Amino acid sequence: MITHSCFTVEPWCLRETELNLDLLAQSESVFALSNGHVGWRGNLDEGEPHGLPGAYLNGVYERHPLPYAEAGYGYPESGETMINVTDGKVVRLLVNDHPCDLRYGRLLEHERVLDFRTGVLSRTARWTTPGGQTVRIRSRRLVSFTQRAVAAVVYEVEPVHGTVTVAVQSELVANEQLPHVEGDPRVAAVTGSPLVAEEHFAQETRMRLVHRTGVSGLRVGAAADHLVEGPESTRWTSQSEPDVVRLTVTADLKPGQRLRLVKFVAHGWSGQRSLPAVRDQVEGAVAAAVSAGWEGLAAEQRHFLDRFWAGADVEVEGDAQIQQAVRFALFHVLQAAARGEQRAIPAKGLTGTGYDGHSFWDTESYVLPVLSLTAPQAVGPVLKWRHRTLPAARERARLLGLEGAAFPWRTINGAECSAYWPAGTAAFHVNADIARAAVRYVMVSGDEEFERAEGLDLLVDTARLWRSLGHHDPEGVFHIDGVTGPDEYSAVARDNLYTNVMARQNLLAAADAATRHPDRAEELGVDDEETAAWRDAAARMAIPYNETLGVHEQSAGFTRLQHWDFEQTPSDHYPLLLHYPYFDLYRKQVVKQADLVLAMLECPDAFTDEQKARNFAYYEALTVRDSSLSACCQAVLAAETGHLRLAYAYLREAALMDLEDLEHNTRDGLHIASLAGTWIAVVVGLGGLRRHAGEEGNPDRLGFAPRLPEALSRVVFTVTVRGRRLKVDIGPDEVRYVLVEGEPLVVLHHGEPVTVAAGAPVQRPVPHLPAGPEPQQPRGRRPIGLTDGQEPGGEPQD
Amino acid sequence: MITHSCFTVEPWCLRETELNLDLLAQSESVFALSNGHVGWRGNLDEGEPHGLPGAYLNGVYERHPLPYAEAGYGYPESGETMINVTDGKVVRLLVNDHPCDLRYGRLLEHERVLDFRTGVLSRTARWTTPGGQTVRIRSRRLVSFTQRAVAAVVYEVEPVHGTVTVAVQSELVANEQLPHVEGDPRVAAVTGSPLVAEEHFAQETRMRLVHRTGVSGLRVGAAADHLVEGPESTRWTSQSEPDVVRLTVTADLKPGQRLRLVKFVAHGWSGQRSLPAVRDQVEGAVAAAVSAGWEGLAAEQRHFLDRFWAGADVEVEGDAQIQQAVRFALFHVLQAAARGEQRAIPAKGLTGTGYDGHSFWDTESYVLPVLSLTAPQAVGPVLKWRHRTLPAARERARLLGLEGAAFPWRTINGAECSAYWPAGTAAFHVNADIARAAVRYVMVSGDEEFERAEGLDLLVDTARLWRSLGHHDPEGVFHIDGVTGPDEYSAVARDNLYTNVMARQNLLAAADAATRHPDRAEELGVDDEETAAWRDAAARMAIPYNETLGVHEQSAGFTRLQHWDFEQTPSDHYPLLLHYPYFDLYRKQVVKQADLVLAMLECPDAFTDEQKARNFAYYEALTVRDSSLSACCQAVLAAETGHLRLAYAYLREAALMDLEDLEHNTRDGLHIASLAGTWIAVVVGLGGLRRHAGEEGNPDRLGFAPRLPEALSRVVFTVTVRGRRLKVDIGPDEVRYVLVEGEPLVVLHHGEPVTVAAGAPVQRPVPHLPAGPEPQQPRGRRPIGLTDGQEPGGEPQD
Repeated sequence: MITHSCFTVEPWCLRETELNLDLLAQSESVFALSNGHVGWRGNLDEGEPHGLPGAYLNGVYERHPLPYAEAGYGYPESGETMINVTDGKVVRLLVNDHPCDLRYGRLLEHERVLDFRTGVLSRTARWTTPGGQTVRIRSRRLVSFTQRAVAAVVYEVEPVHGTVTVAVQSELVANEQLPHVEGDPRVAAVTGSPLVAEEHFAQETRMRLVHRTGVSGLRVGAAADHLVEGPESTRWTSQSEPDVVRLTVTADLKPGQRLRLVKFVAHGWSGQRSLPAVRDQVEGAVAAAVSAGWEGLAAEQRHFLDRFWAGADVEVEGDAQIQQAVRFALFHVLQAAARGEQRAIPAKGLTGTGYDGHSFWDTESYVLPVLSLTAPQAVGPVLKWRHRTLPAARERARLLGLEGAAFPWRTINGAECSAYWPAGTAAFHVNADIARAAVRYVMVSGDEEFERAEGLDLLVDTARLWRSLGHHDPEGVFHIDGVTGPDEYSAVARDNLYTNVMARQNLLAAADAATRHPDRAEELGVDDEETAAWRDAAARMAIPYNETLGVHEQSAGFTRLQHWDFEQTPSDHYPLLLHYPYFDLYRKQVVKQADLVLAMLECPDAFTDEQKARNFAYYEALTVRDSSLSACCQAVLAAETGHLRLAYAYLREAALMDLEDLEHNTRDGLHIASLAGTWIAVVVGLGGLRRHAGEEGNPDRLGFAPRLPEALSRVVFTVTVRGRRLKVDIGPDEVRYVLVEGEPLVVLHHGEPVTVAAGAPVQRPVPHLPAGPEPQQPRGRRPIGLTDGQEPGGEPQD
Repeated sequence: MITHSCFTVEPWCLRETELNLDLLAQSESVFALSNGHVGWRGNLDEGEPHGLPGAYLNGVYERHPLPYAEAGYGYPESGETMINVTDGKVVRLLVNDHPCDLRYGRLLEHERVLDFRTGVLSRTARWTTPGGQTVRIRSRRLVSFTQRAVAAVVYEVEPVHGTVTVAVQSELVANEQLPHVEGDPRVAAVTGSPLVAEEHFAQETRMRLVHRTGVSGLRVGAAADHLVEGPESTRWTSQSEPDVVRLTVTADLKPGQRLRLVKFVAHGWSGQRSLPAVRDQVEGAVAAAVSAGWEGLAAEQRHFLDRFWAGADVEVEGDAQIQQAVRFALFHVLQAAARGEQRAIPAKGLTGTGYDGHSFWDTESYVLPVLSLTAPQAVGPVLKWRHRTLPAARERARLLGLEGAAFPWRTINGAECSAYWPAGTAAFHVNADIARAAVRYVMVSGDEEFERAEGLDLLVDTARLWRSLGHHDPEGVFHIDGVTGPDEYSAVARDNLYTNVMARQNLLAAADAATRHPDRAEELGVDDEETAAWRDAAARMAIPYNETLGVHEQSAGFTRLQHWDFEQTPSDHYPLLLHYPYFDLYRKQVVKQADLVLAMLECPDAFTDEQKARNFAYYEALTVRDSSLSACCQAVLAAETGHLRLAYAYLREAALMDLEDLEHNTRDGLHIASLAGTWIAVVVGLGGLRRHAGEEGNPDRLGFAPRLPEALSRVVFTVTVRGRRLKVDIGPDEVRYVLVEGEPLVVLHHGEPVTVAAGAPVQRPVPHLPAGPEPQQPRGRRPIGLTDGQEPGGEPQD
């Protein structure tokens, strides 16, 4: 898509130079604005044409029954689906009675720019009506990072030649008519008209709608106020109906005259608060926005982003596309999380309805690692959201006959919404992922209050889960059977290695945290016998390994399964899950996404360098990357094992996932985890950032092992650890560690301890290590940029 | 139920001496009449009260969409549900305007008798209306074995004291109102009004209805004619509506006078034939029935059953309950299959709507083994039904990426209707079960024409399935991964032993049959390379075995899984699947039903005696018998390993499954496979009947290893093999082999060849072998008659 001629490559913005109706839905996703609480898809101001109109509030969903042709004990009975809430962005335009719909008349010029530094989406257009009148339209839009309920639009229209009569209709719309969704009457029932009107109001330039969801019973409100500037002929009127309120502004515009509308919108919701409370909440937010004014909101936005970029920016020299993509990625990751405030981060953020708006393990395993080191203030609230769902997770564990807590595979409000248990309930690793995220957050933030409170709760309940889920065999080895790891082309396996090493970390971290906080541990009923049981299970954890092949097994016996026949798999049969049954995928050696490779990323100290190289090569040959969660992990291990060309190719694939629409579903929303993966591929991959287990009494510390692929001449990134801001500036032969802010810091450079202090940058050479032959991928599944049959030397062969 | 005081223990009938409304639905199942083509539940003549009214035609179903909250490639999109067709058994009665409904007034006497020798269900009642008039009612009912479309009712009513006015309404009813089914709107939609009226007709005593199913498009017709006998006051009139036709007969009856109605009903259906064709078909069948008359039909019925019992009867001395139960079982197995004629045998026969009327592997693995040796003429047509579904099975294999044919786990018309693939699609053993049934049928019938035609097709396509489903490991061992065996508390396992040994038989049988019929094999594209590949795979088949424990593994690694915690499992938590999630059942050592034990039954030569004893003891401790398919298999292995008291207990459990309603769902229909299992427990268990692999050129032969438990003083059974009728008469110390009919026969008696000729019975002693300690079952799961803590000596212990 970015390669489409209508998109340009620029370092600090995403610019679309003409409107391409075929790319409309994708463009709505990439141009989406959000602060993690309110999300507006990048729909055209006029509402139509659209791919999918959308305004979302984090946490607002409708519940619907989950159907089963053959039910089973413990299957979730109802699902949750994120709904399109009251849409506040619509500003319709009529020019001499011609509705401005860019499918009609003639579009002379159309440009949209999303600026990553200002956080504003700008648009300019010149359009000739079917009647022949030409107008210039300019709009700007923001969803405020500083006032979390607020979004705002500036809409301007002026004639190019003769005089025109224009009418601008600014609306709040509930139960917006959505494009017909094929096939699934169940989802259609939810998405059709999910909102029940409670109140509608319009007076002068002010308007308000309050609704309630039918089953989940959430109250949703939106309010707006407007500033109108125009010539003397300008008049306005407003009206309200249950599902729409509308301010209509009319004016006769001569050349040189302009009608300008500034729209301040506030969104709010509550599952508990009364109608008057929600009403007042949105009215108050609008008043604050009006008081700040557009310029004030825009200035706050810029200031917020300046601070973000100062601590998070990544510079990439040598590949302008990647430079743009990595900033696009960081901007959207920030948008997904910045002001969520104890709500989940959905897999698509608030950019679309893909995956029903659910959150998965990617939040903790892909998004939070990035935020922990770039915007740590956004991390605690997400983990507190998980903590808020502990009662549901405990209840789920009880239902499953387990101790502790079993967090859901997919959810909005904390209830398990996965209807296919082998890939949902059985994927228990989500619990270890949450525990690890909590430990990581405490380590990089130093938030000990969190550790004592929410952190310990999370660690203890997940450790209890693992202890009850696993069992010892007659030789005393601890096994975790019947679980599903990250790779969704295997399921219900014995001793999934990723799960086991993550559970091991989880058990040890819980024991350590309980020891650090004995009073809290006692409150939770944790005694020395229990922590000893956790440590013992961790010490005897089964780690499947095939001695003959000299590689670790993804799960017990995995390497003895039949190999998938890649030679006989047509290239249009990917993703495999759309062309082959689970039964066939599960019983063969074929890997959807990094699983053992992710284990080597997450638990680097559990493998020798030689094992990493052999494992990586073995699983490369089996991994088809039918998941957007894979490429970034492969980039990291490719870099670590010295295959820098391959690491670069995977970095590009992760980075361009949405900009190039590599999975053909960017229309449904962005892949937030893959966007985070872009940063992971750069910082963890090329930067070699790792958190290494420290010695007793000496907390874990950061290490770097920087190394650049030939294509890149320089990579610079900044990470924040416990208030210290460290810049890592990597060149082809040398790396500079610069402490921008904070107390001196010891880090590892390729294993060597290095002390960095403010004003005293340290330079170190980049060692060039020989790597073996470049691992091969399944036929037709090389990463973009590396074509089949192309050897490392770059020469095509048969 | 049989232990309920209203049921008596008699050798040749099932008698209910009073009406118990709480047992109504169960009684409708046990009193159901069927010939395998038409099935009438044992509803009261008057239609109400009822548990579940039902009239079924084998093969008549409606199609409905299968819903999935999360869909997957290869999931069946629609299901099939057996529907209640036009009900021909209703004869309503009014006495002085009081509708005869036994819930009102006073029931002075009520008896129903199902006679296994006459095949007639008789009923007598004395009932006092709420108005105080007492009448005597007598009815008899049969579903004809000789005229497969025909059923008939004789209904008589007479006053006991004063004069009464009676009205008898004989009806055909379509879209009969059914009791509300909880929860499942999908099934309700199908079962509500599945029939669309095409024609209704009534004239004098004749009536007819023709309907069509809405989606599956099957035309269903019923016709009836009547003989009416009564005093001079007797009048009748008939009328028709789209869903009901009715003959109303009125009479004033003085004491000594009687109104008698004989109703001849014909049912018919077709997926292809026109309305006139179906109309004529049922009219013709009625005419033939009228011509035979009730007495004629009853005489044919008796004759048919006399022939059946002569070749199938089992005598049991020492346990009158079992004597009754085994005949009840044989009668219902015959009813399920006798005149199916190239239709399936549903799991519930035509006695109820349980399992949606689907057929499973139990047909081939439980029902056909019994019929092969007792009513072989019924077996070929069932296998020909499977053969007719080969195109669908081949298409299913293609969809799954496999060669050959993949027969459905559950079906009516040949399409896979299982919506949960781990327990459906993955249970590939159904294919080997079908192949084995074909081989068994050819062996005992000598039907070589079948072997050349349908038999070879079935064997070749199933062998091709196995060859493509399995693969060789680096050491050349052949593995079948990702499949589910008979035990539904495990799924998607590696090298399920039952599946592997059955697939091995299948591969070898296909290769042998192809060699015997080279011309047909060539037509099927089978060459020497292919048969060699089958034989090689069979020779290198993986057989999981735990050396440390000295037992075979149900599947690879099974014996290393965590043991189910039976001590902590409350007795009201059985069946486990209603109280624990699949995820937990699958990953632990807990067995729903005979799996490895069934392998030892089906492939006795694959295990040594010592292995059988150790395996049986090991799996006894894990098997909870939450399936009705288990007890009979456990009976067989208990007998074989010398645990005769245990074998007897399991025999009783299999035998009383429906009569005692042990699974609490006899209301939905009888467990035909468990009924067949009663015979298996007696003949294969106590009789020790096995089919042993013969040498080259010398076909398999029958062996017996008779042995009685203490409780039984004598067991006699008859089997038919290739036209020879052999009676085996087992006493405590001695067995007599009597050839009733046919050429001399060599059988094995406890391994010793014995030649039996007509008129020359052979007697042999029964060896008494010492057995080890009696295997123990999970806590609370001992078979009926053996209570927990009761040791073999009979003394309770703690």
